[in-house]
Amino acid sequence: MFAVPLAEKALISRIRATSRTSTAVRTGIGDDCAVVRIPVGHEALVTTDFSLEGVHFRREWHSPEVVGHRCLSRGLSDIAAMGGEPVAAFLSLAIPRRLPQTWIDRFMDGLLALAKQFHVPLAGGDTAQSPDGILADIVVLGSVPIGGAILRSGARPGDLIYVTGELGGGAAALDRFFAGKRPKPEQYPRHFHPVPRIAVGRFLREHHLATAMIDLSDGLSTDLGHICDESRVGAEILADAVPRARVGPREEAVDLKDALHGGDDYELLFTASAREVVPSRIASVPITRIGRVTRNNKIELIKEDRARSAFKPEGWEHFRARSS
Amino acid sequence: MFAVPLAEKALISRIRATSRTSTAVRTGIGDDCAVVRIPVGHEALVTTDFSLEGVHFRREWHSPEVVGHRCLSRGLSDIAAMGGEPVAAFLSLAIPRRLPQTWIDRFMDGLLALAKQFHVPLAGGDTAQSPDGILADIVVLGSVPIGGAILRSGARPGDLIYVTGELGGGAAALDRFFAGKRPKPEQYPRHFHPVPRIAVGRFLREHHLATAMIDLSDGLSTDLGHICDESRVGAEILADAVPRARVGPREEAVDLKDALHGGDDYELLFTASAREVVPSRIASVPITRIGRVTRNNKIELIKEDRARSAFKPEGWEHFRARSS
Repeated sequence: MFAVPLAEKALISRIRATSRTSTAVRTGIGDDCAVVRIPVGHEALVTTDFSLEGVHFRREWHSPEVVGHRCLSRGLSDIAAMGGEPVAAFLSLAIPRRLPQTWIDRFMDGLLALAKQFHVPLAGGDTAQSPDGILADIVVLGSVPIGGAILRSGARPGDLIYVTGELGGGAAALDRFFAGKRPKPEQYPRHFHPVPRIAVGRFLREHHLATAMIDLSDGLSTDLGHICDESRVGAEILADAVPRARVGPREEAVDLKDALHGGDDYELLFTASAREVVPSRIASVPITRIGRVTRNNKIELIKEDRARSAFKPEGWEHFRARSS
Repeated sequence: MFAVPLAEKALISRIRATSRTSTAVRTGIGDDCAVVRIPVGHEALVTTDFSLEGVHFRREWHSPEVVGHRCLSRGLSDIAAMGGEPVAAFLSLAIPRRLPQTWIDRFMDGLLALAKQFHVPLAGGDTAQSPDGILADIVVLGSVPIGGAILRSGARPGDLIYVTGELGGGAAALDRFFAGKRPKPEQYPRHFHPVPRIAVGRFLREHHLATAMIDLSDGLSTDLGHICDESRVGAEILADAVPRARVGPREEAVDLKDALHGGDDYELLFTASAREVVPSRIASVPITRIGRVTRNNKIELIKEDRARSAFKPEGWEHFRARSS
């Protein structure tokens, strides 16, 4: 309405170039809507995630490629958490007037490299001039066989609780940033280049192993709470069993609090019947049992000395003190 | 990552309450993704549109209900322009820390009233704290029979060009605002409460009448350019034939420039073969022939005296001078 046209043409032509990589996308950018084919016998998955400057990233901390990679990762991770396949991505991007074109180019490089890796065409979106800061909203459309989506609501008492990979790597990098350090991307891969666990999610769905699943974007304590809420169950987690990421130059294990509460790991948290044999690795990703689902509605943490305490969500609070 | 939790629960419960109104939405908000059924024999339509404070609306000009209504209208209008049916909407909403809860409630009232009118459940989205200003991104998922979407690229030389409703009402309200006036919503309905032309789009698709279609969000001159670009054709428009909105207390016709270049009307612009009989009204909306598609790649405006001039996009430029 009041916006002036951006130098959008370069952006649009880049998006169009990638749109051709999928037979699912019948019409991509350049029309009022994208037209996308969902496979017969499948239903659609839809997820949207903001990546806002100053909220989800900082330009002085994160390279444009990292911001683009993380932006798409957030959406793909949600598709993974349903056991789904990504079909197409849509990017809404608002940029301030004086943002250098190279920032946008490098952001798109990071986003499109991850898109290519997962064979997801970027099929549309919106662009606008932002009044302040860079604002991205990623939409990922996915598909899953009808009735096959792994929901948060399926956990049953007695199920065992598992996570993929290691936890706390995302928060540990933030710890370093807030301490005034410059963590190196190669020493904190889960913060800078989280890889969505699409293949693990697919395996769990195809083998009917998981009864409930969520991706760890807000932190174990918060996201476990979501599964317990939606499934109306409780849980107990063995603190010692939680796999801690190894980070930094000496590959030291992160603090337990980062593994228990830190967000942005984009690993999967799932439950499975105790009768099922869950492999210790799926698609090369280690799978670790960390606890079990209980009948009461308490969520408890069991320490080494068998002491039990309430395992409360501290995912957001963890960062609040440092960010305000 | 650095965000603190919003008072999201009220918002989420409102969204959940509306999610139940559709059998298409299998799982709405409260999981990693929404699970949505696309009808058998149909393909999915996806559109995303920003509504940014200071860019697409101003809090001192637009009530929260109007902002919510216009936000969803933008997405539904894109679905209409493909001849599609809306299936579900997704709202990403970032709000500044000190925004009153009543603003959000009233915004949702406006958005959900329109959603209800079009039987579109709000099935998910994202929320965040905005560093500055209100940021909304609306995603609408729609469906259309396979191969039935009306694209921008189908116009052929000799086709006739039509618009729905009247044009320029959106821009006329902006003229008033920029002149320091307070245009009344009931006197400028197309600005404050644009109604997406879903029923017209459906009729045109079902009767195979339209060869190309677009919604008028950027203004006739700009959007006609998009059809000509995508269809690789030219066009001539009869200035006198363009239906001008009647606005204000005396219901005066808007200036020709507002009808030719003004954005935000959310009417449909379409082309149809000269052999087809296009009704003068579809779903109670007047349909007006305004020109024809030509073989050369010129877009021309023909005035009353038969003088021809290049009909160049001025949709954005029209507002640029006043907004910077």
